[in-house]
Amino acid sequence: MKVDGRDLRAVWWEGDEAHGRVVMVDQRLLPHEVTTVDATTVEEVAAHIRAMTVRGAPTIGATAAYGMVLGRHDPEASAKVLAAARPTARDLFTALEWMQAGEGPALARAEAYVADILDRCRRIGRHGRALLADMARDVGHARVLTHCHAGALATVDHGTALAPLHAVVEAPLADDVRPFVWVDETRPRAQGAITAWELAAAGIDHKVLVDNAAGALMARGDVDVVITGADRIAANGDVANKIGTYTKAVLAQAHGIPFYVAAPRTTFDASCPDGAAIQIEERDPEEVLSFGGRPVYGAGTVAVNPAFDVTPARMVTAYITENGVLSRDGLEHYLRETGTPLDSV
Amino acid sequence: MKVDGRDLRAVWWEGDEAHGRVVMVDQRLLPHEVTTVDATTVEEVAAHIRAMTVRGAPTIGATAAYGMVLGRHDPEASAKVLAAARPTARDLFTALEWMQAGEGPALARAEAYVADILDRCRRIGRHGRALLADMARDVGHARVLTHCHAGALATVDHGTALAPLHAVVEAPLADDVRPFVWVDETRPRAQGAITAWELAAAGIDHKVLVDNAAGALMARGDVDVVITGADRIAANGDVANKIGTYTKAVLAQAHGIPFYVAAPRTTFDASCPDGAAIQIEERDPEEVLSFGGRPVYGAGTVAVNPAFDVTPARMVTAYITENGVLSRDGLEHYLRETGTPLDSV
Repeated sequence: MKVDGRDLRAVWWEGDEAHGRVVMVDQRLLPHEVTTVDATTVEEVAAHIRAMTVRGAPTIGATAAYGMVLGRHDPEASAKVLAAARPTARDLFTALEWMQAGEGPALARAEAYVADILDRCRRIGRHGRALLADMARDVGHARVLTHCHAGALATVDHGTALAPLHAVVEAPLADDVRPFVWVDETRPRAQGAITAWELAAAGIDHKVLVDNAAGALMARGDVDVVITGADRIAANGDVANKIGTYTKAVLAQAHGIPFYVAAPRTTFDASCPDGAAIQIEERDPEEVLSFGGRPVYGAGTVAVNPAFDVTPARMVTAYITENGVLSRDGLEHYLRETGTPLDSV
Repeated sequence: MKVDGRDLRAVWWEGDEAHGRVVMVDQRLLPHEVTTVDATTVEEVAAHIRAMTVRGAPTIGATAAYGMVLGRHDPEASAKVLAAARPTARDLFTALEWMQAGEGPALARAEAYVADILDRCRRIGRHGRALLADMARDVGHARVLTHCHAGALATVDHGTALAPLHAVVEAPLADDVRPFVWVDETRPRAQGAITAWELAAAGIDHKVLVDNAAGALMARGDVDVVITGADRIAANGDVANKIGTYTKAVLAQAHGIPFYVAAPRTTFDASCPDGAAIQIEERDPEEVLSFGGRPVYGAGTVAVNPAFDVTPARMVTAYITENGVLSRDGLEHYLRETGTPLDSV
């Protein structure tokens, strides 16, 4: 994405393989500060993934790939450290498997993984744009509600859920229909702030709302479609994504609004039968008990903090992938016929 | 409610009618500080209602009644100022009509209104306790999810949605089943913090969650019943309540979980045919754009901030009233046969 005229990615490698480091945009400080942090050890990379310095399943995968460059002298131990950072995002494991499976210099391998992700996201954007174009033609508007942040910095660049909107900027819809985005705040971590910042930078119309308001907006007919990203998609199509995604799916179904999940093949987990088999990360209750470092509750209050929930496949209208928009019925064939980078080793 | 051993109400009158003032617990500072503010003019009372120093439909009504004591020399003008403070809570208008309709000293009239509210809430507690007792007997637990704060300070004392839980403290359930409360944060104003503080003070087990997590808790079978308060209930049973209530109702329905609304007769609006006729307050977008005074979003971000939503009557399992637990079918008869204080003038 362009920020103040320069290209910005979520994570990159600086230097050569022997004397280099992983550079990450510190997403915890967005949108208030755009700063980067460096990591020069596997442990530092794992700590940044855990702390959500970097976030978004494809970006977590890319960061882990670069982490494996730092840990190239002991790949097995390095993969173990990185795998333990966060349990839910499938891309983390896809990237680790890819880095361990192949031959050749580690850095070239990581860069190939990242280039592949970028290409997949660009293609998701094109397929998603076609959906929005159909919608604009059919109903005269394209008002998208999105949850969390599945934009450029969540996927190194371009995004998944937001990729179709970036694609519209490059190739406007017919009759000058401008898409519009409703941005969920997405407590506890308020990733909606990153989404709003990215949309503003790209000149895409949007308004933000608290998570509680999505139902009222749908009831009054102000939402045409819901598009979210995913952290892991099981073989049967069940989707683990940021907590609150499931609520949006239930609301969309109750209002007859299509609910799309945009994700690259690296997020699909063919070895996972269904959502019940996906490990849901429980994060520090402090994320719930405070906001921006300030306590919301009195001392001694206890909170639950599941970081993700599972949306059953039956609630997903279709999956926006780099290979097209797929219904649930097409998933089995898709998973068999296509692959992650790993499958081309 | 008891706070540090002393009785605390949301609002009261101090002094005699001629030289008195309205004293309010400043709910904006809860749970971090328990302090009071005074008002000695009608305009000050209206400003405190608007700013949510006091909140909760029955408490807003009681505050307006006391405000009319300050404005007793020009009741018509005073009622106009107070009526303009917030549009949605029915109790505000119930109280103003009551204060204008009757004879006798204004202070005695306001105190009668408040005593009546307290009595109604106590009775709501007893009827709601019976529901929880049935649930505890049938399923062995009573895990209540509540949204916003419909507790003691929202209703002068005792509460509506929380009244059944206070009633259980006074008269425990059989087999020592202890009720448990899931407390929604309730962005944008985080009234869940007041709910958690009140439950802690009363020794009632609870955990807090972000609004996004309720769906996941229901999906895993951790919620037995949803109970909320109301700001206004139309003649057909449609319920205006804090933004996000509707989402909880949709989720409850999707999971086969009963959804109860607890409210006194003063919140029912027999003259309002249905939810579409209820005016929904749009509040300052700043409430959404910041949290606890700190900005969440970048400068220039635009937000929507509907303060309430409407839950259709068909999603309400029953209404917990001071006269018993009523189904939607019983509402018409109920509204005809019972009355607000006004009907006994």
